[in-house]
Amino acid sequence: MTHQTLIEARIAEWTQQLPQGNLYAPMAYLMGLPAKRVRPALVLMACELFGGRAEDALDEALGIELFHNFTLIHDDIMDAAPLRRGHATVHEKWDVNTAILSGDAMLVKAYQLMGKHPQVAAIFSEHALAVCEGQQLDMDYERRAQVTTAEYRAMIRLKTAVLLACALRVGAAVAGASGEGSERIGAFGEHLGLAFQLRDDLLDAFGDPAITGKQQGGDLRAGKKTFLLIRGLELSGAQGRRELQEELARPAEQRDVRRMLAVLEELGVRTEAEGTVQQEEGLAMNAIDKVSAPAARKEPLRQLATLLMGRIR
Amino acid sequence: MTHQTLIEARIAEWTQQLPQGNLYAPMAYLMGLPAKRVRPALVLMACELFGGRAEDALDEALGIELFHNFTLIHDDIMDAAPLRRGHATVHEKWDVNTAILSGDAMLVKAYQLMGKHPQVAAIFSEHALAVCEGQQLDMDYERRAQVTTAEYRAMIRLKTAVLLACALRVGAAVAGASGEGSERIGAFGEHLGLAFQLRDDLLDAFGDPAITGKQQGGDLRAGKKTFLLIRGLELSGAQGRRELQEELARPAEQRDVRRMLAVLEELGVRTEAEGTVQQEEGLAMNAIDKVSAPAARKEPLRQLATLLMGRIR
Repeated sequence: MTHQTLIEARIAEWTQQLPQGNLYAPMAYLMGLPAKRVRPALVLMACELFGGRAEDALDEALGIELFHNFTLIHDDIMDAAPLRRGHATVHEKWDVNTAILSGDAMLVKAYQLMGKHPQVAAIFSEHALAVCEGQQLDMDYERRAQVTTAEYRAMIRLKTAVLLACALRVGAAVAGASGEGSERIGAFGEHLGLAFQLRDDLLDAFGDPAITGKQQGGDLRAGKKTFLLIRGLELSGAQGRRELQEELARPAEQRDVRRMLAVLEELGVRTEAEGTVQQEEGLAMNAIDKVSAPAARKEPLRQLATLLMGRIR
Repeated sequence: MTHQTLIEARIAEWTQQLPQGNLYAPMAYLMGLPAKRVRPALVLMACELFGGRAEDALDEALGIELFHNFTLIHDDIMDAAPLRRGHATVHEKWDVNTAILSGDAMLVKAYQLMGKHPQVAAIFSEHALAVCEGQQLDMDYERRAQVTTAEYRAMIRLKTAVLLACALRVGAAVAGASGEGSERIGAFGEHLGLAFQLRDDLLDAFGDPAITGKQQGGDLRAGKKTFLLIRGLELSGAQGRRELQEELARPAEQRDVRRMLAVLEELGVRTEAEGTVQQEEGLAMNAIDKVSAPAARKEPLRQLATLLMGRIR
């Protein structure tokens, strides 16, 4: 069976045995929406990389996916987001209180699955806390006038990249990998996560709406502090340019997104971001190269990375 | 050192090493408010009951107190409560988003402390989930027109009593207690918790405001579905009495609380509730009697139970 088949079967089995009631229905709903299941796949692949069997890490794979979905429920409340994966968010479909509590119970459920190996639980807790720290920084930065690119990078590392590293290190721990192996596969996940998030920012700004399915420049229109806007403001300030500031001073619906995109191109922000994406991808691939394991076992991870980066070899 | 001294010192030490930032400040704030620390004391006492050292269960005692405070942060959001222990609630002092996220991180912190023994983590997860189920039932029942006394009892068992049982069973597990010992000390906690919650309902209605520090009949005025009101409505219906319904039909500020209290007395609800409190206390004491351990080691638990029930021997 493929990893995806194993994961979907385990999720379906888990969902079926949930008790009735308003505490569990949101879990079944969210876990039932179509999703890429990248994080559980990373758990299984890392387990196999270090000589374990995918089947032995299925509980932990499910636990990581539950944790990820728990963060989505609570983040969507904090962002007052109406939609997730094209469907109503939990707090919209039920209410905020149910979303808070169901999320809490989902985190407990995740821990129940991570508890077979004490080492796995410790790795999981350490990374889960980092994810919370990242979300807190994200909220702090939304309120601040100035955020540096270094701060932004530290924030997305915690908020996004760390959970990929966590999934990989959990899979490695199930297989009994060495500390060094765990470090390297964790580094692979972090660099991959950073590259993926930056690429997502780039796609939002410069991607073809026909392919992304999103309005071009939605983040810029909303004034969201992504790498592109933060770096654009840094360079604008140094060069005495005012276009981005002018646009941000207007109400969101009156912002000239084309003008903002043109400025980012002229300042070289797009090129710089693309360079950083490539650099992080390179660092990810270097990290996995150094893992002591047969090349054939690294192939699924390389392929998933390539897929995530949107390139077909 | 007494248990209280040990616990307060461990909490102070833990609070001191928290990182800076908005994620951790609410934890330090809430854990720093004066509190009875009943649950961590139960952990230490149960550990000693089964031959362990209190010092060896201090992490788990702190973990239980963190979990309890996590539930307070999130419950206070759900109840839109402005005050906790006489001070501003976390979502009032900061904001709802910070309260959600800081609570989440506090649950992770609790798990970090419960992870030394896999058996402890398993007991903790099982009971944590039950506490979430209890809070969900509480919210469900607030919206329902009719709730039976059996349903109310099942709800407070999950929402309140289960966490006392959890604290005791965690302490027992640290000491390596047998399954039978764990069962009995858990039963002691559940009966104690039920007695305590019912007694709290009674105090709110019939207690002396000079002693309770609360307005008499606050729950009745708010139309809160406690045992007293639920049982009062059941008996009123059977006897064709309408007073409680009439008062509940009025806006809260126009309700005649004295009339409601008089009806509850006449229907025998107060006597019945007091009888149930005594019955649960008796069951608690029976459960601890049956634990195979020297009588002297049971004394601290008996004394704490007596203190909680507000009687001095």
